[in-house]
Amino acid sequence: MAIVGAGLAGLVTARDVIAAGSSAVVLEARDRFGGRVLNEQIGDGKVVEVGGQWIGPTQDRLAALSSDLGIETFPTHVHGENVIEWRGELRRYRGTIPRINPAVLLDVERAQRRINRLSKKVPLDKPWMAPKARRWDSLTADTWIRRNVATKAGRDLLQLGVEAVWAAQPEDISFLHMLFYVHSAGSLQMLFDTEGGAQDSRFVGGSQSVPIALAQRLGEDTVVTEAPVRRIEHGHEGVLVHADGGVTVKASRAVMAVAPALAGRIVYDPPLPGYRDQLTQRVPLGTVAKCMAVYDEPFWRGQGLSGQATSDTGPVKVTYDNSPPDGSPGVLLGFLEGREARQAGRLSARERQTVVIDCFTRLFGPRAAKPERYVERLWAEEEFSRGCYGAHLPTGAWTNYGEALRAPIGPLHWAGAEIGQVWSGYMDGAVRSGETAASEVLAAL
Amino acid sequence: MAIVGAGLAGLVTARDVIAAGSSAVVLEARDRFGGRVLNEQIGDGKVVEVGGQWIGPTQDRLAALSSDLGIETFPTHVHGENVIEWRGELRRYRGTIPRINPAVLLDVERAQRRINRLSKKVPLDKPWMAPKARRWDSLTADTWIRRNVATKAGRDLLQLGVEAVWAAQPEDISFLHMLFYVHSAGSLQMLFDTEGGAQDSRFVGGSQSVPIALAQRLGEDTVVTEAPVRRIEHGHEGVLVHADGGVTVKASRAVMAVAPALAGRIVYDPPLPGYRDQLTQRVPLGTVAKCMAVYDEPFWRGQGLSGQATSDTGPVKVTYDNSPPDGSPGVLLGFLEGREARQAGRLSARERQTVVIDCFTRLFGPRAAKPERYVERLWAEEEFSRGCYGAHLPTGAWTNYGEALRAPIGPLHWAGAEIGQVWSGYMDGAVRSGETAASEVLAAL
Repeated sequence: MAIVGAGLAGLVTARDVIAAGSSAVVLEARDRFGGRVLNEQIGDGKVVEVGGQWIGPTQDRLAALSSDLGIETFPTHVHGENVIEWRGELRRYRGTIPRINPAVLLDVERAQRRINRLSKKVPLDKPWMAPKARRWDSLTADTWIRRNVATKAGRDLLQLGVEAVWAAQPEDISFLHMLFYVHSAGSLQMLFDTEGGAQDSRFVGGSQSVPIALAQRLGEDTVVTEAPVRRIEHGHEGVLVHADGGVTVKASRAVMAVAPALAGRIVYDPPLPGYRDQLTQRVPLGTVAKCMAVYDEPFWRGQGLSGQATSDTGPVKVTYDNSPPDGSPGVLLGFLEGREARQAGRLSARERQTVVIDCFTRLFGPRAAKPERYVERLWAEEEFSRGCYGAHLPTGAWTNYGEALRAPIGPLHWAGAEIGQVWSGYMDGAVRSGETAASEVLAAL
Repeated sequence: MAIVGAGLAGLVTARDVIAAGSSAVVLEARDRFGGRVLNEQIGDGKVVEVGGQWIGPTQDRLAALSSDLGIETFPTHVHGENVIEWRGELRRYRGTIPRINPAVLLDVERAQRRINRLSKKVPLDKPWMAPKARRWDSLTADTWIRRNVATKAGRDLLQLGVEAVWAAQPEDISFLHMLFYVHSAGSLQMLFDTEGGAQDSRFVGGSQSVPIALAQRLGEDTVVTEAPVRRIEHGHEGVLVHADGGVTVKASRAVMAVAPALAGRIVYDPPLPGYRDQLTQRVPLGTVAKCMAVYDEPFWRGQGLSGQATSDTGPVKVTYDNSPPDGSPGVLLGFLEGREARQAGRLSARERQTVVIDCFTRLFGPRAAKPERYVERLWAEEEFSRGCYGAHLPTGAWTNYGEALRAPIGPLHWAGAEIGQVWSGYMDGAVRSGETAASEVLAAL
C-alpha cells in the first residue's frame, strides 16, 4: 500500500496494513514525522508543542495508541484562578464560569444547549442528511449566533469560542459544519473545556512523541521522508506514486493522508472527477499562530493563577500554562486565531513577538514582559500544512459536496483528521481515520 | 516576461508587454488558446461555443480587442416570445418580464433595486472597505434573499438568477461578493439581460476566434502550448518557471494568468506567504455544464419563439438560441448550473443528454426530442479550469483575505477574469486584468 503523509493518520494506516500482513510505504514531504503535531526543543532536554498537543476523555483511539506506545499523559495545569479580560477590566475567577454579567452567561448557556441539541441531529457519516441540512448549510455560524444570542456580550463570548475551536471566524463557517463538529466531539463543552474536555491532558515528552514512536515501530524502511508527492497515476491495476527526488512507489492502492485542500494540489493521472476536485476547493484550513513565552519558572502559579486567560481585547484571546510536567521552565502559551492570526501573520517576527508579550504582560503582570525565550509557529506558512488546526467547511460545501469527502475513487482512499467522524479535526480523529482507511484498503485487497 | 496561461488575460498581457518593447513568453497547459473560451466544430465549418461566448454593452476592453482583431459581433437571437415554465405551467411572454404573479414581480424588482443600490457602496478595488463590509461578508446571498424577499416565488426567481450568473447556489456566495460582482458589471439587469446586457451579442466565428487571432498575432514563438507550469522559483533576481516536458523560462517577472485556485496548486520556491496561500483555498470555481442540441433548423423560430426559456423545474433552468449568425443549423443552448451541474456531473454522458433533451422537449415541443447532434462541456472536469464560469468568494473571504487577491508578491503578478475590477468574471474582466498586469510589470522594470 502507498500512503501519502506521515502524520498520525498515515502512520496509523501503515500500522494496521502491516499488522494485517500487507506491506506499506509512507511518503512524507517533510524531514520529520507528525504533520501538524510537532515538538520544539527549549533547552535542557525539555520540549514544548507548537502543533496539536492535548488529549481528552472519549479520545479513546488516540489514548489506545499512545498507551500502546508507552507514552504517558499528565493533566494540563489548571490549579489556581483563571483570568478574564473583559471590556477593559481584568478579573480573576475559579472554575469554568467567568465573572461577567449573569444575564450574559445565561444567554450563552442557552445558546450552547441549543447548539448541543441541534448537533445530535447531524449524522456524523452524512451531515448532509440532517433534517434541516440545506437550511443550516446556507447560514454562517455568525448568522446563527446573531439570531439566537440576545446580548452583544453573549455573541462576543461565543465568537471567541468559535475562534478558539476552529481557528476561524464565525463568518467563515457553515452552521451545519459547526453542528457536525460539535456532534463529532460530543458537545460544545467538550470542545471548550480544559478539565474533562479536549484540553484535559498532555503527553509526557510532548505530543510528537506519539507519531515519532509509531514511525520508529514501523521501521525506517517504511517511512520515506523528504519525498513530497507530486503526481499519482491510478487505475484498475493500482497506483504509481511519484515524489520529488525520483522516488516512485507502485502499489495496489493509495491512502491520501493529507488535508483535502493539499490533496487537491497533487496532479492525478487521469484527473480526478470534477465533483471531488471542486470539494478540495471548498475545505480551507484555519489560521493560527501558536505562541509561547518561556520563563525561568511558572511565576503566575505563585500568584495563585492557573495561566488560563480569556480576553476580548486580544490579539491573544486565549492562554494556557504549557510548562513541562515538572513545572520547569514556566511556559505561557497564547493563541492568535482566525482574523488575528491572518493579521499577525503579516507582521515581522519581531513585531509579532512584541504584540504577544504585551498581551501576556497585560494578563499576567510585569514578570511576563521578560521571557527567556519565545517560540512560535504559524501554520499557514508551512508549505505542507497551509493552516491549522484543521479544515472547516464554508456554507454550501457539506450539502453540495459532502459525499466527495470520504468516498474512495478507484484505488485512492482518503484519511486525515478531517476525515474522522468522531473527534473530527483532532489527533483522535486522525487516528480513527487511519484505522478506517486501513480497513477500507484491506477489505478491497 | 513569463506569463502563465494563454487565456484572454495572459494573451493580452503578452500583447501589451511586447508592444512596450519587452519580450514575453506565454506558457499554456493545454494544446490550445483561450482557457475557458472554446469553440467546438459542429460540421460544415460551423462552430458553437462551449465556454464563455457573449459580449455586451460597457464591455469596452473586450470590444476594443475584438474589433482591433477584425472579429465581428452579431446580436444574440431574441426575436419572438420567451417561454417560462413556472409551477408546472408553461407560458409565453414578450420582453424581459415573465407572466407570473405581479406581486411576485414587484417583490423581485424591489430586491433588485436594493441590491443595485447597495452594490454601489462596494469599492471595486477594495470591497473589504465597503461601509458594512464585515456585516455583508458574514451573510450568504441566500440569507439576504430570505430576509429581504417576502414571497417564496420571488426568492425562487432570485435564486434562479444567482445560479445563472454565478453557476453556484445562493448559499455558496458571500453577500458582499454578490454586491461586488453586481457593481463590477453595473447592475443586476446587466448581468441578467440578453438585449442590452451581458448576453447581448456574440462573435462571428465563435468567441474563441478572439484568443486564437490574438495568439496568432503574437507569433508562434510567443506561446508555448502543452506546457503545464508546475514550479516557480522566484526572488529578487526574477523568476525561473518550470513546466512539464523540461520547459524552463527565465524572466524578470511572471504574470500568473490563471484562476486563483489553480495558481494555488503550483509549487513556489520559496513557498508563498500563508496569507496568499490561504486565499487560494477560498476562491472556488463555479459549476456549469453547457449543453447544446443541434437541429437542422431553429424550428422554434417558426413557432414564434425566441429560444429563450426559464424554468423552475430544471435541471436545465435557462436556455438560449445559440444558432450561428445565418441561423443554420439550429442550436438550442441549455445550462446546468450550481447544484444541478454538481449532480448532473455524476451521471453518465448518456443519462445527462437524456435529461437535457427532455428539458428542451418540455420547453420547445416534440421537435426538440430529436437533435442531429448533442454537444456539452463540463468545466469542473477540465484539469486546467476546474470550474466555470468563474470563481466566487464564500463568506469571510473578501474581508479576511481580499488584499491578497491582486497584490503582487515580489516578481509574481496576478491576472485573470477574477482579478478584473470591471466586469469581473467575464471575458471583458479578463482583458482588463491583462492590461493592468502588463502595466504593473512594465512599471516595475
